[in-house]
Amino acid sequence: MLKGHNLVGFTESAAGTEVVSAFSTVDQRELPEKFAVATATEVENAVKKAVAAFAVYKTFSPDQKATFLETIAEEIIALGDGLIKRAMLETGLPEPRLTGERGRTTGQLKLFADLLREGSWVEAVIDSALPDRKPLPRADLRKMLVPIGPVAVFGASNFPFAFSTAGGDTASALAAGNPVIVKAHPSHLGTNELIASAIDAAAKKCDMPDGIFSFIIGKGNATSIQLVTHPGIKAVGFTGSFNGGMAIYQAAITDRAVPIPVYAEMSSINPVVLLPGKLKQDAATVATQLSGSITLGAGQFCTNPGLIFLFQDDATTAFVTTLTESLTKVAPATMLNPGIATNYYKGRKAVAGEGKVSTLFMGDELGTTHQATPALLQINAADFIANDKLQQEVFGPASILVTCSNAAELQQALSCLHGQLTGSIFATAEDLQQFSGSIDILSGKVGRILFNGVPTGVEVCHAMVHGGPFPSTTDARSTSVGADAIKRFVRPLCFQDCPETLLPAELKNDNPFRIMRKVNGQYTREGL
Amino acid sequence: MLKGHNLVGFTESAAGTEVVSAFSTVDQRELPEKFAVATATEVENAVKKAVAAFAVYKTFSPDQKATFLETIAEEIIALGDGLIKRAMLETGLPEPRLTGERGRTTGQLKLFADLLREGSWVEAVIDSALPDRKPLPRADLRKMLVPIGPVAVFGASNFPFAFSTAGGDTASALAAGNPVIVKAHPSHLGTNELIASAIDAAAKKCDMPDGIFSFIIGKGNATSIQLVTHPGIKAVGFTGSFNGGMAIYQAAITDRAVPIPVYAEMSSINPVVLLPGKLKQDAATVATQLSGSITLGAGQFCTNPGLIFLFQDDATTAFVTTLTESLTKVAPATMLNPGIATNYYKGRKAVAGEGKVSTLFMGDELGTTHQATPALLQINAADFIANDKLQQEVFGPASILVTCSNAAELQQALSCLHGQLTGSIFATAEDLQQFSGSIDILSGKVGRILFNGVPTGVEVCHAMVHGGPFPSTTDARSTSVGADAIKRFVRPLCFQDCPETLLPAELKNDNPFRIMRKVNGQYTREGL
Repeated sequence: MLKGHNLVGFTESAAGTEVVSAFSTVDQRELPEKFAVATATEVENAVKKAVAAFAVYKTFSPDQKATFLETIAEEIIALGDGLIKRAMLETGLPEPRLTGERGRTTGQLKLFADLLREGSWVEAVIDSALPDRKPLPRADLRKMLVPIGPVAVFGASNFPFAFSTAGGDTASALAAGNPVIVKAHPSHLGTNELIASAIDAAAKKCDMPDGIFSFIIGKGNATSIQLVTHPGIKAVGFTGSFNGGMAIYQAAITDRAVPIPVYAEMSSINPVVLLPGKLKQDAATVATQLSGSITLGAGQFCTNPGLIFLFQDDATTAFVTTLTESLTKVAPATMLNPGIATNYYKGRKAVAGEGKVSTLFMGDELGTTHQATPALLQINAADFIANDKLQQEVFGPASILVTCSNAAELQQALSCLHGQLTGSIFATAEDLQQFSGSIDILSGKVGRILFNGVPTGVEVCHAMVHGGPFPSTTDARSTSVGADAIKRFVRPLCFQDCPETLLPAELKNDNPFRIMRKVNGQYTREGL
Repeated sequence: MLKGHNLVGFTESAAGTEVVSAFSTVDQRELPEKFAVATATEVENAVKKAVAAFAVYKTFSPDQKATFLETIAEEIIALGDGLIKRAMLETGLPEPRLTGERGRTTGQLKLFADLLREGSWVEAVIDSALPDRKPLPRADLRKMLVPIGPVAVFGASNFPFAFSTAGGDTASALAAGNPVIVKAHPSHLGTNELIASAIDAAAKKCDMPDGIFSFIIGKGNATSIQLVTHPGIKAVGFTGSFNGGMAIYQAAITDRAVPIPVYAEMSSINPVVLLPGKLKQDAATVATQLSGSITLGAGQFCTNPGLIFLFQDDATTAFVTTLTESLTKVAPATMLNPGIATNYYKGRKAVAGEGKVSTLFMGDELGTTHQATPALLQINAADFIANDKLQQEVFGPASILVTCSNAAELQQALSCLHGQLTGSIFATAEDLQQFSGSIDILSGKVGRILFNGVPTGVEVCHAMVHGGPFPSTTDARSTSVGADAIKRFVRPLCFQDCPETLLPAELKNDNPFRIMRKVNGQYTREGL
């Protein structure tokens, strides 16, 4: 039974008169539940509570925080089938995908719990005092990463669990030691409420301070901007459109007395380069892999391959034939919400209408039933280079083949690319040697470079980078997936000649947690 | 013999007609040498060369880069006495300070060389492939930090060596693998040219690519903004005033198609908290320490203590008497340039003229001879809290005593503070217990917290944080001093299923450099 309220810390709150509801693209109808839009006062109170909670939460031990994260995972599982059912209704995503995503979400929470228990992520560095050094003695200097304060999280439409209410941003911000305020995604308000109730239950079980977590429901931009510009908010995690991300980014820099970091993951078309040796060897397999990647989840992935670079030869002809055939066989798939469906058809039509673009395959337009069909377009590299509009993300199962006449043209086309989350190269060993210049250029444009694999499927692990140069994100120095996502919500703090009793455990002489530290330039788990 | 040119890569260039010259506050005159202001074309060419040099330089081994840094240090030393003499003339700083600063600068270059040779700073992380994992196999994922591209550096007036042409920003950007373009500081144009000639000589000796280093001379803001908004520039290091830093920061975010990171170290008044037990124990020593710190280098340090919080009691009275006496005895000191001298007297007069501020000591106004005399002002905490203007940095030997009536008021005053580079606490063990709340608040406002020491004197080491919350810097996640300064100019790049031959050495199976890596969650120097 959904309540339709906001959660201002531990308090269920619905003070306003405005309501919103979610739309089901599966049922083709507005869902009956009403959700109360947060008033400015509710937003204000959520931030106030978060600021107060921060003072308490940051003093908690790594173990306490880890237990909290694990308890959230347990409470999510305890929601059972109702959660999956509601998410299916609100997102149109199929059951296996959602149970898988739930597993990923709880796995993510556990990864951060493990990271906290291991402890070395704080990057403790110690330089011992040198009282006898000439001409001047050296003080005792120790530093580590500390939390920055309340984090505002804007979840994604396409990952109702893994990048939303209890998703990667929330998990990493909490792990780092910060309270979180989630702005509920309007597409899946019920799912948000259920997940929020799990976080709420976990927070109470673990004796977390009131304000460690809030969620608020918005309508239009006002709530988001109020949140982002509030002095109590110290960082933002965002996953969504370029326009949405930039509005928040600009507000966080220019509309605040104190600018704050914004980690917005926005727009990526994930170029794929098919080199001739590989295509000659295996055109059919590559075509099948790419067809699957383009249409996976109705193409609604930030790592969806939207650009495919190749050369004109016989293998390419075979590849294009197989890819086109494969795409024609893909059944229409329900999209996340009406806006996404409308924009998909609008976007692919606009690209197809650009000069020099030819259409290889264009599935039926099923926007009225919010279903997506694939599209495959083609252009020559010279024309691609001349038209920046072709780099606008079309969110959905559409891709453009860019045909290059030679290696130099491929390099030139890759040089023109905007920043991307991923870049993929299909190549033989000989291809790699022959096209090393292109690979080097592509590496400079992306956060993750893949070899003989498709970009969809983002592993949650230590080595992942899910980030990349602008406009794929607003901060190429960060990742929003994997262990290092925690580093977005911290800053280094140095203690000079701090009495042992006052030092955080991570910096104490005896290294009670046995974390890896850098002591006088040497890595060690030993105490001083 | 100074040439008065720009350095566009390896090419000496003076294509423009406009010239500028440096002013000596020691000699009270404009120095005879003329320096050619760079034309827009010269700036453009410097960036073009930097972009081309990046493609080459980033492929160099850590050892090659380290040798380059060490050779710069040698070439600086080889400039001999002429460098020190010119810097004395241009900055008014005394010889021992400048020889010390030169040592710090070469030491800094060597620290980064050592860091490169050790190699672990790249944060290599490897998660091995799990081909048999169910339901999906895991790819081989490896990541490390890679350079981001050409960096623009804006040097400081107050550190003609250590924070200027071959200072910390240049050293760390080069160490990270990026070409550097320095905008020469208008206060010490000759010093800049000499140091630039040392970098140039080192670059040629070490077979660096043309464009690895350029320096350009500007007039007004146009040159700086052209540089910062150029698409080829990928990050900025700046040390200077709040207004200068913010102009660059805003341009880098809003006037570019692709925003870039700006590390601007701008404005800090470095609060000092004197707790009652400590003052009772040792008022005279604390007063002497603070007097020395306030007036060191004519107060022209970013870590100069501009605010001193204390309580009203007998020990305080003794402290204030000693501090005032001590300040009266400090001889007038030559400031860096006429603008700084003018602003110092203007600034301290403005603060002294604010309501409720009383003047305890005000040295003679020697602005016409560009010399600084100390000033000591006082205000009650309640009035300090009410007047945000008192938090504007007065660059020079002036400080404000803020008298608190109780612990709660101290906490309130500290809560109002803007972000700072440092915060210092003078305390006994009992004080620390009693005032733990205040220490916690202060920690949240600063990049470095010191105990029973003065903030001036920034050690170049692994554990240093010279950074802090806005407005002390534009990026509290960074430090501009110490080993981690290198991390400002890199981003993580992930390699998925990358063939061994193509992997950077740091990520290869056998770990040829024996760097510390995180492999499947475990820290190790072993190969796979």
